[in-house]
Amino acid sequence: MAKRLGIVGGGQLGRMLALSAAPLGIECRFIDPSDAAGARVAAEQIVAEYDDLPALRELAEWSDVITFEFENVSAAALDSIAGLVPLAPSPRSLQVGQDRAVEKQLFDQLGFAVAANRVVGGFDELSAAFDALGGPAILKTRRLGYDGKGQVRISDVGELAAAWDAVAAAPCLLERIVDFDCEISAVVVRAADGTTCSYPPAENVHRDGILETSAVPADLPEELRQRAISWAAAIAEQLGHVGALAVEYFVAGDELLINELAPRVHNSGHWTLDGASCSQFENHVRAVVGLPLGSAEPNRRTLMVNLVGGLPNEEAVLALRGTHLHLYDKSPRPGRKLGHVNLVERGDDADFDARAEQLVALARAAWV
Amino acid sequence: MAKRLGIVGGGQLGRMLALSAAPLGIECRFIDPSDAAGARVAAEQIVAEYDDLPALRELAEWSDVITFEFENVSAAALDSIAGLVPLAPSPRSLQVGQDRAVEKQLFDQLGFAVAANRVVGGFDELSAAFDALGGPAILKTRRLGYDGKGQVRISDVGELAAAWDAVAAAPCLLERIVDFDCEISAVVVRAADGTTCSYPPAENVHRDGILETSAVPADLPEELRQRAISWAAAIAEQLGHVGALAVEYFVAGDELLINELAPRVHNSGHWTLDGASCSQFENHVRAVVGLPLGSAEPNRRTLMVNLVGGLPNEEAVLALRGTHLHLYDKSPRPGRKLGHVNLVERGDDADFDARAEQLVALARAAWV
Repeated sequence: MAKRLGIVGGGQLGRMLALSAAPLGIECRFIDPSDAAGARVAAEQIVAEYDDLPALRELAEWSDVITFEFENVSAAALDSIAGLVPLAPSPRSLQVGQDRAVEKQLFDQLGFAVAANRVVGGFDELSAAFDALGGPAILKTRRLGYDGKGQVRISDVGELAAAWDAVAAAPCLLERIVDFDCEISAVVVRAADGTTCSYPPAENVHRDGILETSAVPADLPEELRQRAISWAAAIAEQLGHVGALAVEYFVAGDELLINELAPRVHNSGHWTLDGASCSQFENHVRAVVGLPLGSAEPNRRTLMVNLVGGLPNEEAVLALRGTHLHLYDKSPRPGRKLGHVNLVERGDDADFDARAEQLVALARAAWV
Repeated sequence: MAKRLGIVGGGQLGRMLALSAAPLGIECRFIDPSDAAGARVAAEQIVAEYDDLPALRELAEWSDVITFEFENVSAAALDSIAGLVPLAPSPRSLQVGQDRAVEKQLFDQLGFAVAANRVVGGFDELSAAFDALGGPAILKTRRLGYDGKGQVRISDVGELAAAWDAVAAAPCLLERIVDFDCEISAVVVRAADGTTCSYPPAENVHRDGILETSAVPADLPEELRQRAISWAAAIAEQLGHVGALAVEYFVAGDELLINELAPRVHNSGHWTLDGASCSQFENHVRAVVGLPLGSAEPNRRTLMVNLVGGLPNEEAVLALRGTHLHLYDKSPRPGRKLGHVNLVERGDDADFDARAEQLVALARAAWV
């Protein structure tokens, strides 16, 4: 097994990976340009841009295996280290995850439903696509989108030009807006030997384009939950993926439509830190270093609440029975994820819903 | 609440405290003479002896509150920082915990049963005490005992002289050997406002004088389990203790006898990292920085197995369903605690006992 784990990216995901790696005796080192990277708490930092080739080579030389906090790693960066050290996930998973059009091809190939969409390379194509899809749509940049960034809603043809300006004429996907009942996501972790560990899907609620809450179990028929898990596992299998992989879905009636995938640990899996036997972070580490996966068995119920832009009073949060606080050591800024709280119901908890409501209210009052 | 936590000691307890403090947004710094202190993974180190007064003052100046990984802190060291920064637990808890004779006085005062014992200050007192107790006994140094160190068994008067030599004529307690059915311990965490969180008692098995396993729940009548918890809580209350406190007991029939206390997180509470809602480490941190305590609610069953002297194969350990590995980043040495494994049963697990047996066998095969 690998003993030295290199991580590209040292934000909250790298931080929680490093904190999960420590008890396993895995040493972590990460590359991040920020002098306030949250992963510093439990890993050594190489202060450099993610595409700084000498720095990446330095990380590769130290590491037994390299993993990624995010999928937007340039081909040049990947090429520079791919021969030096094993990468988990592989460049293929990252490349699929970083381009919405390539993602959709994979979903088509597997026969999994997605919202009607068109690849858009220029303004004329955008007009034609909007006509063809017929109705309100979202223009999404193929690359570098997260937390609602790089996305513009288009309700009628009069808004096409402004939308095209807003994405700076970048290669895009135009997607028909789905009239969904709810959004869910499924996180699976796949080991190199093909073993997978599948967490139950979370039901996600967004606010200002940013994830606000994930609730487990999702309030859905068991058949739909199983479908969400099996699609995610099939995608991981098809990619030969190693590590965590999250798939986001729209649920419309009894239909499941894939929204997007993330070839990494995912915000909608943060509930697993306290709500499942072995968290997505520990299981990702186990997968990439070559240790057997842990169990995904969940507690009775978990609600994950993101802390965005500003922090609620910690005493008030932790005074609610069953809460667990996870701060990322980031300075407050509007729209920035600063931490999350997991509210866990382990046995039969009469007032779980009341505490959930109070927790959401506390987080929302501090949301900027 | 305190944001900067100073820790005296950076071994495995300091390490697990620091790893538990990070998600709460608590920064840790610790003092330890070792250049391989395990707490370094998640805290900054001041490399110095525990009684290095300038180093202690440096820690005190940085910290909002100071806590302790062990109770054997000199009075001079405590005096040097007590006025500069709050200490949790207080010097009183530490002073009681570091002297077996003072401990016994406290237990007597509370009316809690202990094994028959005598304080011994010289060889003549030892002879007289052995006569008075009548029967096999253990001579224990009043201070600095751990993992069976500073303890000598005396079966008959012919062994008195050798025993007195073995403890180097240190102030001692001679204790009649209890013919116990089992050993248990209870960990409570007390907040400054008097709130307590009590974990269910663990049943402990020792090997070579070192803790080998802790099993929860202890296989005892509920009344005895409750008594163990309530005695520990009463001791914490009597001391005005803030933080974790462990009490070890002998169980003989329906009698409970206190063996000793530790005014800190304790090896027999390591199961709480995976077996309880909020671990002893997180709750200790919450208590000393002034955050509300978390829940002690346990999973169905947990077995903690210590890894001593040598490590078993990690893949083999983690291939057993329900296992969680905690390594301390210490180099192997006979009798040294290198890590522990928690085997957790969350639901109804038919083969839990079989896996428990395999886990103990793996650990024992590597035990040196």
